[in-house]
Amino acid sequence: MVKKQESGLMEKIVSLCKRRGFVFAGSEIYGGLANSWDYGPLGVELKNSIKKLWWQKFVVERDDMVGMDGAVILNPKVWEASGHTGAGFADLMIECKKCHSRFRADHLGFVDEKGNIVSREDISCPECGKEDWTEPKQFNLMFKTNIGPTEEKTNMAYLRPETAQAMFVNFKNILDTTRKTLPFGMAQIGKAFRNEITPGNFIFRTREFEQMEIEYFIEEPNSDKDWQKHFEYWVKQTKDWMELIGINLKKVDAFEVPDNERAHYSKRTVDFMYEFPFGKKELYGLAYRTDFDLKNHEKFSGQNLKYKDQETGKEFWPHVIEPSFGVERSFLAILCEAYQEDPSATLGASRVYLKLKPYLAPYQAAVFPLLANKPQLVAKAREVYDSLKNRNSSFSIHNSFNVAWDERGNIGKRYYSQDEIGTPYCVTIDFDTLENNTVTVRDRDTAKQVRVLVPELKDFLTKKIYS
Amino acid sequence: MVKKQESGLMEKIVSLCKRRGFVFAGSEIYGGLANSWDYGPLGVELKNSIKKLWWQKFVVERDDMVGMDGAVILNPKVWEASGHTGAGFADLMIECKKCHSRFRADHLGFVDEKGNIVSREDISCPECGKEDWTEPKQFNLMFKTNIGPTEEKTNMAYLRPETAQAMFVNFKNILDTTRKTLPFGMAQIGKAFRNEITPGNFIFRTREFEQMEIEYFIEEPNSDKDWQKHFEYWVKQTKDWMELIGINLKKVDAFEVPDNERAHYSKRTVDFMYEFPFGKKELYGLAYRTDFDLKNHEKFSGQNLKYKDQETGKEFWPHVIEPSFGVERSFLAILCEAYQEDPSATLGASRVYLKLKPYLAPYQAAVFPLLANKPQLVAKAREVYDSLKNRNSSFSIHNSFNVAWDERGNIGKRYYSQDEIGTPYCVTIDFDTLENNTVTVRDRDTAKQVRVLVPELKDFLTKKIYS
Repeated sequence: MVKKQESGLMEKIVSLCKRRGFVFAGSEIYGGLANSWDYGPLGVELKNSIKKLWWQKFVVERDDMVGMDGAVILNPKVWEASGHTGAGFADLMIECKKCHSRFRADHLGFVDEKGNIVSREDISCPECGKEDWTEPKQFNLMFKTNIGPTEEKTNMAYLRPETAQAMFVNFKNILDTTRKTLPFGMAQIGKAFRNEITPGNFIFRTREFEQMEIEYFIEEPNSDKDWQKHFEYWVKQTKDWMELIGINLKKVDAFEVPDNERAHYSKRTVDFMYEFPFGKKELYGLAYRTDFDLKNHEKFSGQNLKYKDQETGKEFWPHVIEPSFGVERSFLAILCEAYQEDPSATLGASRVYLKLKPYLAPYQAAVFPLLANKPQLVAKAREVYDSLKNRNSSFSIHNSFNVAWDERGNIGKRYYSQDEIGTPYCVTIDFDTLENNTVTVRDRDTAKQVRVLVPELKDFLTKKIYS
Repeated sequence: MVKKQESGLMEKIVSLCKRRGFVFAGSEIYGGLANSWDYGPLGVELKNSIKKLWWQKFVVERDDMVGMDGAVILNPKVWEASGHTGAGFADLMIECKKCHSRFRADHLGFVDEKGNIVSREDISCPECGKEDWTEPKQFNLMFKTNIGPTEEKTNMAYLRPETAQAMFVNFKNILDTTRKTLPFGMAQIGKAFRNEITPGNFIFRTREFEQMEIEYFIEEPNSDKDWQKHFEYWVKQTKDWMELIGINLKKVDAFEVPDNERAHYSKRTVDFMYEFPFGKKELYGLAYRTDFDLKNHEKFSGQNLKYKDQETGKEFWPHVIEPSFGVERSFLAILCEAYQEDPSATLGASRVYLKLKPYLAPYQAAVFPLLANKPQLVAKAREVYDSLKNRNSSFSIHNSFNVAWDERGNIGKRYYSQDEIGTPYCVTIDFDTLENNTVTVRDRDTAKQVRVLVPELKDFLTKKIYS
């Protein structure tokens, strides 16, 4: 009865996002800007819910994790130590001498399977058709800027290409202020910037994006088994997280990245590949970074970044397991999973609904007076609405819902409108409400309705939403 | 009995922030970077609480406000339309020809009271003492970068110097997707970047900072009274917000910015000047931007950005009231207000405590087993701790507290340690707890203790914290 139409799914999602205020093209009135996106009223709520849930699960709930929030612009030496100024964080780029279009060399076939540059005369420019190329050269993916009033090498700085480094740079500060003992992790949510040559696929690959990253510090391993134990634990945690946000694990492959494809710092990497409508692509990554980062920051900064075991007195660089989560990719995968069409619907076209986890939905509930022109219904509906928003209590920050209000049009259309943005429960105040103080609560996924006493409504919804 | 020591207050706050993990110098192991700062485990929680409270109060609670989240890098035309590429967003800078040090021209006296450049031979360079200067020239405060692999004018872009413009650029998208009618507002929280020549005063003025901004759209005014009514409403809202986060309004001046000092777009601006330890400085701003932004974006983009009144059919550019809140300045003002010393304390030095609003504190409560070497006490304390964190319930995101755990050292020191980071309530599990299932709840500000039954503890704390 309920069927997901894979064909054209991306187009449908992009269109819904624009139509209902989840995601707009960035700088749209100026013709956009290079695949950048702005998040509208519903999009920002979904994004905030993802981040809040992640922080709750990985920071607040755990005793072995501390949060932090570092600057976007760091001392450029950080990127020397991390290896980002080197070839490891550069794409090989090639330019057409005729039309000056630029491409990734590997995309056009100038790189062989072993990663070597091959000189070829027979490749045409996809833009102008000519076959006259510059030598391929390295293009670093970091955005550059200058601090202070002049543009000189001495004040050049980069926008961070990952949030991770701020955590390594603050490792000692965190140790000193929290007195954590191994194993423990640091977690951070924030923007990162990469000057991608070919961004695309809606919000999947953008030059500006938000990461939720953990650096989990473990004892110096005596054998592979020591770090693999932690690695496997984080594989499991990553999968649990995916289930929590509604990702079907059957659509996820844990791909072991082979030796020659891993980032320069990693001894093992697993990419969690999700079946997006445009192909199987990396959703999350998990990397064993060894002691690469702390060791290098010690070398480049001259500061002692070792951990001292209080019992044995031994000093060493902890090793690091890094689970890395993209906010926008989470957002997109969640929408891909949630998008549903119900062709059995009775209101003309198929009923479209977003089967979002109730705790992630932009609104947890919507409240409708059955008729907008009956003041008694509207007043009673307002009362219900205010109580769900906790508005009349002394302090609404605690224990309130995001609640939508709609009094326009017929009730069926209002249900469909909420379905499309994933509101799990619609509460209708009708004439019976005035008689017996019950409301209709209608379920998004089943379209079934039950009647609930107004004084019990909040508890009823809380249980439905949070368990 | 309780006395705030004004002298050296900033030094004390900076020191506490570093010592306890609120704020660290950015890139510290590399000698820092130009007055940038990273937020540690406690700082990120306080910052998140400020943002969450602001969003709750100004977006979730209100029916006339929608949120959004725009990109940091916008189409450069946005900044032409907004006036940011022009002289209105530039500082006049002057350079010493001998040592090439650069200064703000007005700081050295090259600008007279009327804002005119004056040519003077008698001003010495503060760096080298010479008196040989270049002509003053405009230095734009926007950070520049390039999108794509080359550094050319055609792909130059800016880091946004304010979050506001994304809201104007999305005005039509928001209208179309939310069907809001005037008056209504858009709200956004996000990073902005300004290449300040002279940042300083800890986190007060930094090149990278976070804004919480509202653009409140109103009818085209027929008289000054029409917009002033809204303006006064937002003066009141801003003051209410300050009280909510614990700012003493007696330390705030609402300063009417005179004609010649207002930003290019503003017809009236009020700066809320807070008595920081380093002087009275702008904490928040409130500006009447007229229809400057929408009108200019229509002119530069060629898109119709007018609002159409559904009843009268009249089309016009709404006017805008803009309340603007800095996250870091809120953070700093909150700490300045909260920092307290109690010289009557008995543990040697003065007791230092942060009198934070309980709902803003990094931890709402701390749980201690009286003795760490009594397994029964530790087990019972764990039980209390887990229940406050909601850890054993099916879903902890709802209705849980941030809770600290401490079992080290004597109980008095543990209290002091929590006082210093603003934890409002310390819960101690002692031998009586094992007898009668009550715990000691100790109040941060009064240091008074009461006994509370364990099953009633969560409700007890909830009421204390949220009302």
